[in-house]
Amino acid sequence: MKKKNVKLVVVGSLALDSVETPFEKKKDLLGGSVSYACAAASFFAKTGMVAIAGQDFPPAYIDLYKKFGIDQSGLSLVKGRTFRWSGVYEANMIDRRTISTELNVFASFSPELPAAYKGAPFVLLGNIAPVLQLHVLNQVRKPKFVVADTMDLWINTAKKPLMEVISRVNMLMLNDGEARQLTGEYSILKCAAQILAWGPEYVVIKKGEHGALLFSKKGLFIVPAYPVEEVCDPTGAGDSFAGGFMGALAGSSTVNERTVRQSLISGSVVASFTVEGFSLNKLTKVSKGDVRQRLAGLKRMTSAA
Amino acid sequence: MKKKNVKLVVVGSLALDSVETPFEKKKDLLGGSVSYACAAASFFAKTGMVAIAGQDFPPAYIDLYKKFGIDQSGLSLVKGRTFRWSGVYEANMIDRRTISTELNVFASFSPELPAAYKGAPFVLLGNIAPVLQLHVLNQVRKPKFVVADTMDLWINTAKKPLMEVISRVNMLMLNDGEARQLTGEYSILKCAAQILAWGPEYVVIKKGEHGALLFSKKGLFIVPAYPVEEVCDPTGAGDSFAGGFMGALAGSSTVNERTVRQSLISGSVVASFTVEGFSLNKLTKVSKGDVRQRLAGLKRMTSAA
Repeated sequence: MKKKNVKLVVVGSLALDSVETPFEKKKDLLGGSVSYACAAASFFAKTGMVAIAGQDFPPAYIDLYKKFGIDQSGLSLVKGRTFRWSGVYEANMIDRRTISTELNVFASFSPELPAAYKGAPFVLLGNIAPVLQLHVLNQVRKPKFVVADTMDLWINTAKKPLMEVISRVNMLMLNDGEARQLTGEYSILKCAAQILAWGPEYVVIKKGEHGALLFSKKGLFIVPAYPVEEVCDPTGAGDSFAGGFMGALAGSSTVNERTVRQSLISGSVVASFTVEGFSLNKLTKVSKGDVRQRLAGLKRMTSAA
Repeated sequence: MKKKNVKLVVVGSLALDSVETPFEKKKDLLGGSVSYACAAASFFAKTGMVAIAGQDFPPAYIDLYKKFGIDQSGLSLVKGRTFRWSGVYEANMIDRRTISTELNVFASFSPELPAAYKGAPFVLLGNIAPVLQLHVLNQVRKPKFVVADTMDLWINTAKKPLMEVISRVNMLMLNDGEARQLTGEYSILKCAAQILAWGPEYVVIKKGEHGALLFSKKGLFIVPAYPVEEVCDPTGAGDSFAGGFMGALAGSSTVNERTVRQSLISGSVVASFTVEGFSLNKLTKVSKGDVRQRLAGLKRMTSAA
């Protein structure tokens, strides 16, 4: 394994998902924020994962990570069962109900970074408990850019450590409902101004199929979503967006407003592939050329000149 | 009145609206698709209205139309009461409930075009019964560009004349839910392909605060929404978008993919002002310079270069 080359470290959940859409039902799919984010990032930069799985984790999925070129030296395979999630999507393919959550080995997850990861310039703190995100932050040496993702659960149950995470990262990524919940503001512009005041240089507010908004001192950027003909399974879209973004940023030579904007578009494009299949099924069939093609397409779709 | 100069003719409803938002309640506001569309269009081109109002229509509103420079020679003031609509917005400022609809003089509306309007190069068929839209189409001589707006009511109750309208216009504008209802497709891309197959060169699918999508043989264009800090009253946003678009297109020298795209952005910007006040309150305070400023701002918000 080429541990020394890891430019981006991703920490997050690793799960076996059972997903039901109005059209299909699938069991024990490879899922979790770390799987989607690493696969998405791998199109642009050498990525390493920090995650935990049980003895029942299918070897085929280890091979799949390898196929994406993901460094797995931060993956702990321990006694017990892998985290399992199951959910059902409504007809609109947006709203979903969680049927069951079995934390299993994930309940005792304490993300320990391999020595080779500690100097990684880019760090993506996927959606896990803020105390675990802080534990990762305490292990890394001066990263160039750190993004944290979060969710309503942590806003409700772990606000204090979450606020510490927010104060220590370069970018916070969350969806519109979560931004409202976190700040108590309804206006998305006011939500963003409040979060920026807490420390991060950037805030990205995700709007699902409608794209996202980037806020910074330099202003606002409207991140377009690449329109897909059919959504097969929206699971992992947000994680792919975050991973694709961080991979693209890690793959560019400098971090500035321009490269952040362009990398968000890359994240958007990779996420558009993710939703066209269950799990990583579509992403496994996508080439760098396919990504470039959608990037060029999205450029034409947003240009009025 | 400078009847001969009218470049854009707008036909639509004219109403006195009573609107309740979570924050305020207003009575007998100037409303209706024709009011919003004409005011929005007037920033870019000489616009004339075809509409009906009752004897109770406040002279102050006639003066307001004048202030926008709207040609009113197609406005019939007849015996009876003006169309009245009242509604309540939910906390999200998107969903609304109609409390009452009194058609009054609007029930007998038959849009008759003044002679000077019949050669107008641009025609906006605002959201009224498809048979009335056809009646207008039968009076105009070879317009350069005709847009029709529609709504769920006509899809449910007047599909046949609506299909004839669709086959005779250059562009159909409708929201995402209506596009699904009209075509029976869920995927927005499939909805658009179906509508294009029925005849129009362009279809615009509106997504409210998330902007719109333009479809044509030349491809897809993502029309961004200008993000506003606070929405005061969303009534008339879609009509302002349509009116601002058609005004900008009428004001440009040629009609092509590029000018259509740019004009849609102008429509988006004018609509962003509309929602910042009740009725036309905010639009009356907006200058052409303010519009240009938001256009430049939106360009910065959509550029990653």
